[in-house]
Amino acid sequence: MSSKFKNAKRIEGLDSNVWIEFTKLAADPSVVNLGQGLPDISLPMYIKEELSKIATTDSLNQYTRGFGHPSLVKALSCLYEKLYQNQINPDKEILVTVGAYGSLFNAIHGLIDEGDEVIIIVPFYDCYEPMVRMAGATPVFVPLRSKPVDGRKWSSSDWTLDPQELASKFNSKTKAIILNTPHNPLGKVYTREELQVIADLCIKYDTLCISDEVYEWLVYAGNKHLKIATFPGMWERTITIGSAGKTFSVTGWKLGWSIGPDHLIKHLQTVQQNTVYTCATPLQEALAHAFWIDIKRMDDPECYFNSLPKELELKRDRMVHLLESIGLKPIVPDGGYFIIADVSLMDADLSDMENNNEPYDYKFVKWMTKNKKLSAIPVSAFCNSETKLQFEKFVRFCFIKKDSTLDAAEEIFKAWSRQKS
Amino acid sequence: MSSKFKNAKRIEGLDSNVWIEFTKLAADPSVVNLGQGLPDISLPMYIKEELSKIATTDSLNQYTRGFGHPSLVKALSCLYEKLYQNQINPDKEILVTVGAYGSLFNAIHGLIDEGDEVIIIVPFYDCYEPMVRMAGATPVFVPLRSKPVDGRKWSSSDWTLDPQELASKFNSKTKAIILNTPHNPLGKVYTREELQVIADLCIKYDTLCISDEVYEWLVYAGNKHLKIATFPGMWERTITIGSAGKTFSVTGWKLGWSIGPDHLIKHLQTVQQNTVYTCATPLQEALAHAFWIDIKRMDDPECYFNSLPKELELKRDRMVHLLESIGLKPIVPDGGYFIIADVSLMDADLSDMENNNEPYDYKFVKWMTKNKKLSAIPVSAFCNSETKLQFEKFVRFCFIKKDSTLDAAEEIFKAWSRQKS
Repeated sequence: MSSKFKNAKRIEGLDSNVWIEFTKLAADPSVVNLGQGLPDISLPMYIKEELSKIATTDSLNQYTRGFGHPSLVKALSCLYEKLYQNQINPDKEILVTVGAYGSLFNAIHGLIDEGDEVIIIVPFYDCYEPMVRMAGATPVFVPLRSKPVDGRKWSSSDWTLDPQELASKFNSKTKAIILNTPHNPLGKVYTREELQVIADLCIKYDTLCISDEVYEWLVYAGNKHLKIATFPGMWERTITIGSAGKTFSVTGWKLGWSIGPDHLIKHLQTVQQNTVYTCATPLQEALAHAFWIDIKRMDDPECYFNSLPKELELKRDRMVHLLESIGLKPIVPDGGYFIIADVSLMDADLSDMENNNEPYDYKFVKWMTKNKKLSAIPVSAFCNSETKLQFEKFVRFCFIKKDSTLDAAEEIFKAWSRQKS
Repeated sequence: MSSKFKNAKRIEGLDSNVWIEFTKLAADPSVVNLGQGLPDISLPMYIKEELSKIATTDSLNQYTRGFGHPSLVKALSCLYEKLYQNQINPDKEILVTVGAYGSLFNAIHGLIDEGDEVIIIVPFYDCYEPMVRMAGATPVFVPLRSKPVDGRKWSSSDWTLDPQELASKFNSKTKAIILNTPHNPLGKVYTREELQVIADLCIKYDTLCISDEVYEWLVYAGNKHLKIATFPGMWERTITIGSAGKTFSVTGWKLGWSIGPDHLIKHLQTVQQNTVYTCATPLQEALAHAFWIDIKRMDDPECYFNSLPKELELKRDRMVHLLESIGLKPIVPDGGYFIIADVSLMDADLSDMENNNEPYDYKFVKWMTKNKKLSAIPVSAFCNSETKLQFEKFVRFCFIKKDSTLDAAEEIFKAWSRQKS
């Protein structure tokens, strides 16, 4: 085949993708899907109704402002001014993107050069590594490590960075650190003290912080989401990323946003105008309407920012109980809508799984999907190649699911467990 | 300011953008906007109704397949199989993207390396150049040149490539040529003979062809849109790009697609999965429904693929007549929805325009927008820096506009013309 048909070097080796592989497996309608973070709960009525109405207006089906539909950036600035307790310029300090993915890409492509180093905390949302590599930069990994838990429940808060180990990863080549709180897949919500350690290092080494906060509203009792951009000296060096998909449970709208100082956002804008130029207008307009509804009732329990975490906390507790009842010891998440557990105690005969080079969890999830009709996501997908072994006994289950889906999962787990005993 | 806040080198100098600059100017509601290609005609009812219905289905607001929603790639393969008279694999030979912009970016980022050369035909849709530069490649420009027209009407078909000049641009470093037919901004529809010259060179120099065919349905009487991918030896080396925004007049949906052989499309997929991952689900589902409606009536004059060009041809003729009536000599387009004319004969006092380094057409359009309340797009925006002077007397007017908008433009032109005489 012609050498001209080869991929560009920047994407060499970046063609495998856990979502594409495991979403295809879970597409079988007989499979109970606790894999991808795909809500099957009822959506807020008003968000659907807004889109339904807007679709009929001709002008709202045409191009809008490239860096964000005017009504949406206005709503976002109003919301985030409350959270940052500071003014946010809707035109210069906010960029609406094709999902949080688009924000991550714009930030990395706009700010990170060949030869730069970017610190990534393991485990990590899987796209961070290929995006950094596509920019020609070197990812530098630092692990979250668990304290011993003995008889206690295992919590996502048991997983912490060793401040000295983290400090050892910073040097003059460090261009940025990617932070993710609440964390996917662990569900960890970083504390003020933990964020201060990171902020101090960013300032000491004059480093950018790309803070992926897509689960910002999804924190459970006893925890509070904090924005590192509000720490002294951090606004000027932080890009904070949010998501409509996670905020309003509309993952299929593919709208996200970056918030940060003009002197950084302008570089993300340059990437956007030379890659996709603008985002879908009707979805942006509908999202703006949904935001205004909830911005006006933020202290009300009915506000979706308050009601969704309450609804999910019950589902989290149910999943904890279910996994414990079959003898597993899940890591109880403080935020997000995933729960992970060591599944090596489950009875699964993986001996005839085809690809023996795959990590245990890849084989386990494929086996479980095929034999138990239950899907999940292998946690080693969230690791670099050197740390996959540390996490290969863990599997991630998504719990933003209606009761009947969780009922079906429960039945599968219980039958499986009875079989074993 | 910290050096860490600087842009990545790949976007150095790519921050200016004609759309952002001129769309902002035209945002004043008292301005008659013939600038950006933004339809203000009535949309087909069914496309709005489909989206309106789909918005109310929870599951259609969640993530779908990353490389294209299954029902959409199926509709696209069915449609294009008719046009290519060949099978097209919906999963491997089609990629749905964030607009045609996303397809262009995925193709260039996935296939073009640093040091490659990419041939761009001048004038060109403005994003080609920065996209190629962002990939670290060198754009090599070759101009369309006009034959003398004497007393005749001036047609977009008078603009042609000199085959020898084109051939002189190809060499062993040439990785791709970007073709655009029907052409924006000239409205040129390449003939079979012209495309054969390009195809022969692509094959001789083993070069890829990125064929931007977003106006594929918008060709006027006496012309026929041809796909270079259907020429012998070209399928294997061509990425053909289409657009929902242009096909159904919904520019705000930001959906496009790339069609090509598996061995090329797979590299575009790799870029997509590491940049935006997937496109909006409800818009893809609604687009699939709209396609099925029109695929089933392709021979019917009511089919939008047939009715829209008929509607636009009348608007084109009106614009030709209008521009001629005030003493201009427009280049009559054979396709697309833009018309360009040398405006240097118009009475415009640009002496006090601020930025004297700008090309004539930039200053003219700014002056016209401010003083005549009519906006357009300067054609030198579609040129590289070396050829801007050749085109700086030309301005592009968009005519996918309802009658009342064209009436308003007519009034402005006529009053302006009376003033002069």
